[in-house]
Order: sequence, then structure tokens, then C-alpha cells
Amino acid sequence: MNQLLIPGMADQLRGQFGNEIAIKAIKAGTLPYPDGAIIVAIHWMRVSSEFNNTVLNGPFPGTQSWVVGSRANIQVMVKDSKKYAASGGWGFADFTDGKPGNLALHETCFPCHAPAKDRDYVFAHYAP
Amino acid sequence: MNQLLIPGMADQLRGQFGNEIAIKAIKAGTLPYPDGAIIVAIHWMRVSSEFNNTVLNGPFPGTQSWVVGSRANIQVMVKDSKKYAASGGWGFADFTDGKPGNLALHETCFPCHAPAKDRDYVFAHYAP
Repeated sequence: MNQLLIPGMADQLRGQFGNEIAIKAIKAGTLPYPDGAIIVAIHWMRVSSEFNNTVLNGPFPGTQSWVVGSRANIQVMVKDSKKYAASGGWGFADFTDGKPGNLALHETCFPCHAPAKDRDYVFAHYAP
Repeated sequence: MNQLLIPGMADQLRGQFGNEIAIKAIKAGTLPYPDGAIIVAIHWMRVSSEFNNTVLNGPFPGTQSWVVGSRANIQVMVKDSKKYAASGGWGFADFTDGKPGNLALHETCFPCHAPAKDRDYVFAHYAP
């Protein structure tokens, strides 16, 4: 039950999950991540919940709640500093409906993560 | 990696996790949940990420992102239809900083979940 979250971007709710190697590194603040680290991001579209809005404005102070809608895609980062040396040591993959994206899509992964270079290209924060 | 999410209420990001019995039931739409079902909710305060806002407004269309901040509390629901018959078959617990709340706090749990009676008092939705 390793969980990392960066929800809310692009009208999505997003959860990031790491294997043991990744979670150990992010908890310890180890940079760069060691080879073998795997981070999986699940991206859902966020939707407003009419049910929650109706019943929760009583007990809760919020004016609305967002819940998980359809799944947009799943993204994977695998650390192998030799195999993926050209992209910061990370191999990237994107799956939609269980099918991997094409090369053109995958070539957009690394440039998008480049601004997070100081975090070894990982946007996710550890959620204790 | 069983995950349920109802984030965004009360300026929080919230994740709900179920044991095998709970996840099997919610996937199948089984109501009421069988005895032994356990659902754990982790509630974090949500915080704006200056870093994400700076770097992500380029590649992402969102104007801001929320990330997980400090942990507010952890809540647990345990289904035992005999032991907890007086509260819909669910036993409720609330932990803050690892310490359980007092009786007065715990007596607020069931009334708050009462509006979700048609969902066996569970607000969480399954996130596939």
C-alpha cells in the first residue's frame, strides 16, 4: 500500500505508487533513485459527485467534492541508469486501456519530466 | 494496491483502501459488505505546490495542482454485523498521530455515514 499523490492537475486525480526500491528511496530522500526503482502513476479523470455534494455539505465544510471518474491512463517509470542513460536513467511507458502508446507519445515523456531534474525527474511527493 | 478515492472534501485529499473482502465486495457491488470487510481512509490536508504550478503550467493545461500535505487523520471501518449491530454493522475508529480518538469523537462516525445507508454506509467509490 505504497502511495504517492499528485492529484488535481489537468482535471485529474492522480496517484503514484512505488515498488520497495522506489519507496525506500523517496522516504530517505535518496537521489538519484537506484536502479530497479519503479513508479506507477494512475491518472483518473475527476468528476463531481452529486451524491457527496448533497449529503456532505452538512457534516463537511466543503462546498463540493471530486471523486474518481474514468481512468485516463497509466504511466510507468523504470530506473535503469545504463539502459536509459539518454533519458535521465528512466524508461517511460504510457498505457491507455491496457495498450501501450506509440513511440511518438513516449518521446514526450522525458521532456515533460525534465523540469523536475533536481528531483531525479520524479514529480511525486511521498505521502506519509 | 487496492485504492478508493474521495478526495477534495474539506480541503483534504483522501484515499480509501480496502482489504481483500472489502475490495471484492465493492468491485462486485455486493451490499451489504460481508463481515470481515475493512476499509481504511487516509486523510491528508491538501496544499498547493509552487513547484508544480511553476513547471507544470507548461506541459499541463491546469492552472494549479494540489499535493498531499500533512496527514489529518486515519479512519477505519470494520464490518461485524453482530458486534456492531447498533451502527449498521460497522465499527468505526479514528486515529490522529497514531492515537485513537475518544468515545465522544467515535460517536460522531455513524451519524455522519448515515446518509450513505443505501451504500451500506460507505462513501468510497471503486477506482478501477
